Amino acid sequence: MKVCVVGCGAVGSLFAANLAQLDDVEVWAYDASRAHVDAINANGLRLSGAGEVVGRLRATTDAAELPACDYGIVATKAMHTEAAIAATAHAFADGFVATVQNGIGNEETLARHVDRVIRGTTFPAGKILEPGHVQWDVKGDTTLGPYDDGTPLDVVERLADACTRGGMPTTAVQDARGPQWRKVIFNASTNPIGALTGLTHGRVCERPDLRSLVTGLVDEGKAVAAAQGIELDSDPEELIDHAAQKHVAYDHKASMLQDVEAKRQTEIDFLNGGIVRFGREHDVPTPLNAAIWALVKGVEASWQQ
Amino acid sequence: MKVCVVGCGAVGSLFAANLAQLDDVEVWAYDASRAHVDAINANGLRLSGAGEVVGRLRATTDAAELPACDYGIVATKAMHTEAAIAATAHAFADGFVATVQNGIGNEETLARHVDRVIRGTTFPAGKILEPGHVQWDVKGDTTLGPYDDGTPLDVVERLADACTRGGMPTTAVQDARGPQWRKVIFNASTNPIGALTGLTHGRVCERPDLRSLVTGLVDEGKAVAAAQGIELDSDPEELIDHAAQKHVAYDHKASMLQDVEAKRQTEIDFLNGGIVRFGREHDVPTPLNAAIWALVKGVEASWQQ
Repeated sequence: MKVCVVGCGAVGSLFAANLAQLDDVEVWAYDASRAHVDAINANGLRLSGAGEVVGRLRATTDAAELPACDYGIVATKAMHTEAAIAATAHAFADGFVATVQNGIGNEETLARHVDRVIRGTTFPAGKILEPGHVQWDVKGDTTLGPYDDGTPLDVVERLADACTRGGMPTTAVQDARGPQWRKVIFNASTNPIGALTGLTHGRVCERPDLRSLVTGLVDEGKAVAAAQGIELDSDPEELIDHAAQKHVAYDHKASMLQDVEAKRQTEIDFLNGGIVRFGREHDVPTPLNAAIWALVKGVEASWQQ
Repeated sequence: MKVCVVGCGAVGSLFAANLAQLDDVEVWAYDASRAHVDAINANGLRLSGAGEVVGRLRATTDAAELPACDYGIVATKAMHTEAAIAATAHAFADGFVATVQNGIGNEETLARHVDRVIRGTTFPAGKILEPGHVQWDVKGDTTLGPYDDGTPLDVVERLADACTRGGMPTTAVQDARGPQWRKVIFNASTNPIGALTGLTHGRVCERPDLRSLVTGLVDEGKAVAAAQGIELDSDPEELIDHAAQKHVAYDHKASMLQDVEAKRQTEIDFLNGGIVRFGREHDVPTPLNAAIWALVKGVEASWQQ
């Protein structure tokens, strides 16, 4: 089986290095960073932290080098999906392309370029320490499911099985929208609040006024999910309260806060922006998500004078 | 007539220096800044910019020095009203105390300490350049009106007449809530958006997503005003669009943005916070103002580690 990880940042690297442990999987990585690609080709792709792994794989910045692959696993930031899949689609002419990205709308973007798409949500996280070396912060589950009738469930199961055997526990389900929307609602209701205020997750949650805003955002997200017939696999509120505990993620700075502090474009268009767009399609009002979306876009705009 | 300006910052100084031009008015100023008070007593209070004025008056940091006054004009930041009137109330035992502060709720605070209160709203603005010297940025009108039955209109008219003769055009009306709520709605719907995003007023208004959020905030404020039977003297939306023009206030950084950049406590409790509180009293939902209030309080909290 040939698998190409498209976007070999922190999350992409977790999949690439772990899948590369398997004898029956040939792993490729497509990434924009020349330094990262060179380091991977020279010394392998190393993970440290939650697991110690070195994966041997082929990495490239040149999509033309990619062979025909059975599977793609797209792990770019959501705003780079379009460019990444436009460049690499030829490698998946006979294959299936899964997304394990944040946010909603990535499947739709992929489906404009390739015929067979796999929806996905993943919870493991990490960060790039240096080219070729990624810190694996947290382990966690991945859920994959067919995006539409073009993708049979057994094809999804085959990829999930490989990921699981490689060390990334993955479940294949017929409808993967439940975990996806739970994660999107969690992220959209907490990350931008941290980004706009500068507060860690725990400090956001211990302020009754902000915690109430978080619930307002969650409720809109739940309503949009319900209008699509999506059953959340659990309540995002539980995940939020769990993460707020001192020994869990009280001191965690949301990735979007890290983006804002570094003046990097955020994934807001695919979080709150996605909830607003799907809400409009299903006549569900989302005024709080629209407000938060506009504010974070305003912050991004303020970096351009 | 003896008048004491309580809080002799930029706006208080405009009233104090202009009133001091009148032979029939003795002006006192109570302020917390020793340097400002000393400079005023030594060299007078100087205004430059929209008008060139030097006012001779008595300033003090010690409320015990204040004589019995006919009028107070409270011009502190709204969060300092309580402390300022608690210290100075004795000087107004037989007088009337007007507020020309930002926000709503200041009259209520004054009325807990003095019997006769005058509601007010003022549009002139400036900034302190150095102790004893204030830049007068914009001229503008002031509206005063009785807070309740304890204050006859002719008493308000007498103060308005003095202000007008001194160079601060002021109108006395029976119900001053219209201009007050127009200004509060304007400020609450635009200042915090600038503060949260870092954008100038014009840049906020030219982004359709943020402009739409501004309108959402305005609409909630209008509903809360209407529920109290307040007729706005004009539509805050017009003021917002007018100010957004290139030659008016396109490049203006909201005072709340300046506060946030300097990590100074903002007046958010008396703007969006005031709208939310009055909304609750009159069963008018204000979810967007509550969200903005919570976010700015969160920003303030982020300055304390």
